[in-house]
Amino acid sequence: MTRDLTIAEVRLTPILVADPPLLNTQGVHQPYTPRLIVEIVTADGVTGLGETYGDTKYLELARPLAERLPGRSVMDVNGLFEIDLGVDASRIDAGVDAGGLRGVQNADKLRLSVLSAFEVACLDAQGRALGLPVHALLGGKVRDAVEYSAYLFYKWAAHPAGVAAEPDDWGAALDPAGVVAQARTFKQRHGFGSFKLKGGVFPPDEEIAAVRALAEAFPGHPLRLDPNGAWSVETSLKVAEELGDVLEYLEDPTLGTPAMAEVASAAGVPLATNMCVTTLGEIEEAFTRGAVQVVLCDHHYWGGLSRTRQLAAICAAFGVGISMHSNTHLGISLAAMTQVAATVPGLHHACDSHYPWQSEDVLTKRLEFRGGRVAVSDAPGLGVELDRDELARLHRRWAEDDGALRDRDDAAAMRVAEPGRRQPVMPRW
Amino acid sequence: MTRDLTIAEVRLTPILVADPPLLNTQGVHQPYTPRLIVEIVTADGVTGLGETYGDTKYLELARPLAERLPGRSVMDVNGLFEIDLGVDASRIDAGVDAGGLRGVQNADKLRLSVLSAFEVACLDAQGRALGLPVHALLGGKVRDAVEYSAYLFYKWAAHPAGVAAEPDDWGAALDPAGVVAQARTFKQRHGFGSFKLKGGVFPPDEEIAAVRALAEAFPGHPLRLDPNGAWSVETSLKVAEELGDVLEYLEDPTLGTPAMAEVASAAGVPLATNMCVTTLGEIEEAFTRGAVQVVLCDHHYWGGLSRTRQLAAICAAFGVGISMHSNTHLGISLAAMTQVAATVPGLHHACDSHYPWQSEDVLTKRLEFRGGRVAVSDAPGLGVELDRDELARLHRRWAEDDGALRDRDDAAAMRVAEPGRRQPVMPRW
Repeated sequence: MTRDLTIAEVRLTPILVADPPLLNTQGVHQPYTPRLIVEIVTADGVTGLGETYGDTKYLELARPLAERLPGRSVMDVNGLFEIDLGVDASRIDAGVDAGGLRGVQNADKLRLSVLSAFEVACLDAQGRALGLPVHALLGGKVRDAVEYSAYLFYKWAAHPAGVAAEPDDWGAALDPAGVVAQARTFKQRHGFGSFKLKGGVFPPDEEIAAVRALAEAFPGHPLRLDPNGAWSVETSLKVAEELGDVLEYLEDPTLGTPAMAEVASAAGVPLATNMCVTTLGEIEEAFTRGAVQVVLCDHHYWGGLSRTRQLAAICAAFGVGISMHSNTHLGISLAAMTQVAATVPGLHHACDSHYPWQSEDVLTKRLEFRGGRVAVSDAPGLGVELDRDELARLHRRWAEDDGALRDRDDAAAMRVAEPGRRQPVMPRW
Repeated sequence: MTRDLTIAEVRLTPILVADPPLLNTQGVHQPYTPRLIVEIVTADGVTGLGETYGDTKYLELARPLAERLPGRSVMDVNGLFEIDLGVDASRIDAGVDAGGLRGVQNADKLRLSVLSAFEVACLDAQGRALGLPVHALLGGKVRDAVEYSAYLFYKWAAHPAGVAAEPDDWGAALDPAGVVAQARTFKQRHGFGSFKLKGGVFPPDEEIAAVRALAEAFPGHPLRLDPNGAWSVETSLKVAEELGDVLEYLEDPTLGTPAMAEVASAAGVPLATNMCVTTLGEIEEAFTRGAVQVVLCDHHYWGGLSRTRQLAAICAAFGVGISMHSNTHLGISLAAMTQVAATVPGLHHACDSHYPWQSEDVLTKRLEFRGGRVAVSDAPGLGVELDRDELARLHRRWAEDDGALRDRDDAAAMRVAEPGRRQPVMPRW
């Protein structure tokens, strides 16, 4: 073999991508959200792509890491994780993660959130150099398409007046009828067969009514409700009782493993999480206490595709289900999610993806959902191509930003619309 | 890429390899032990090698599996494990595994014990076809050499008179002085820096004396004692107390998770196992009860190298250590063990290997221990080459056997020497 798999160059491009005014319990999505695009180029000129959070704290770790990679092999993925990124733990808010929606923050999770994009880029480069799809590098696909769930949000018709933003054609969704209409659009555009409603926005009775309306409009379709830990144990149990007959699972009804365990022990519906189990260190307590029945993996903060497969193995050993979490991401990450999901035998729940909400992407060709599924590409690497003009345009937006949007803050975005609004105290209900 | 990774042919070669008269709590090793050599050949003529147990029950599953593989890709390793081998669970002795030394027997473990050789052969073929070592296919090595422990056995000088067998130059080891002499030979020949004694052969006081003698002869060297579950909880605790100051860990002192948990809770020494955790289904109880502190993985029955990495991840999530178990194996398996061990970051105990006891091998060049370590090969695949003449010779031995040696049975081999000897009832002490 004459091919040279040595890393010659690493390019990092922070961008801002349009995001609709989607509501959650912390606030509302900013009009633009930061993402980081990673390109790893081999000595032969093969380029692998990765994508992760673009907030300042990730960029600060990604930049010195990128400088250390030239000369290493793109095959040396395990070695990537041995690199000391020098995360300054004292600077990490020990509370919940950005936006309060992704569980605990700690040094290791921050480290993995950066490394994951480099791992994916290495795998993409490996696949392109070897002429193999990423799934083959992970042992091979066990399915030809990966099912995703429609990710329903309460939303405003538009970002607040006077705020620079891209318009969207989804309209408002602020009550059961609006949620059902949004679900119909999702089904019509992408064929989704299951629905998840991001809750924790309105009092539980209103959200119960919305899920009931979905159940009536889409009988037999799996439904999920995710208030991001906005409820007390008592409220969680009440919602579980009222919706137990229609929910596939209830996602993070309440915060913390002890409270989740209390709900799980009495609720007649499985609990899913992307908040109380988001790091290896949280698994033991959560699993031994039976606090969660489905872990929603996110390869961004779990440290990439190989670690996603390891998490799936851990879950399988403990009889815990696995599926996938998502927040705002582009097509590189959707391709990565699809490649790894294709290799996990025990994936029995449709994955989440925000992708339909993203009108912008850095790919020459967007990924498509057909029948709610993304076909597993057999092309080399991730099977996606970078649109350099679009990447440059979205980077200019980032470069020209005064810093206000470079760190995602849903609560701050909400205060733009409602200046007097206070940070919510959990549980809200 | 023009290379064709399609499987064109699979060759299975059962062999009998010489084994010295090594003693364990079940009996004694037979003079020859069955192994199965798997060759997977791609359409381009690249051959990948694998090795596993050669007993009849494994051959019966391997043969129809081999016939189903042509036409598949050697990259499709995950798909291998989706194949229904049609294991007849009713034919499986629900008691302990062959020789009583490898824990529970069940359909899934039997299935994985066969599939593992095919997984390794696929990885070897992948590596040879792509020009990459197997460790690179597993994400890359994190160390350049893998440390092994000297595997000390009580042994006779020779197999019983009148039994066809190959001679060995190790002499007898039946008391503390013999064990220390054997350890000196191990250190002199291979440089090992830690020692494991296979116990459960003599009353515990004699084995305690042997370990004490080792501790005196090799001060500061990690020591292990493995009676294969031959002791009661009470005896286990007594041995742990007497040897707590010199043991790195005590391996399977007693049988079953409840008894191991009882010992673990009171013993001042970590417990290792390759008997109470040998399948995914046993992990939850053992880990939640704190029954074991080190799992000794064996890629043969855990289902191959990728699953070995997954087991390591499971152990890491629960703060349980990992190392490697071994029983009689040849160089293909030692190469596979070394390749995967090189990729596991949290490997903090020297691995076990019987390999120094095997005077015969099917490789053109034996693997070597230097300073107790095997260097991690960076050659394509496993980095070993098949000696076809030797393979043919050892296969003829298998073909000419009347069936008496085709299924390993240490208790039967012991009855040849001691005709009246009964199957030991556990706990023996």
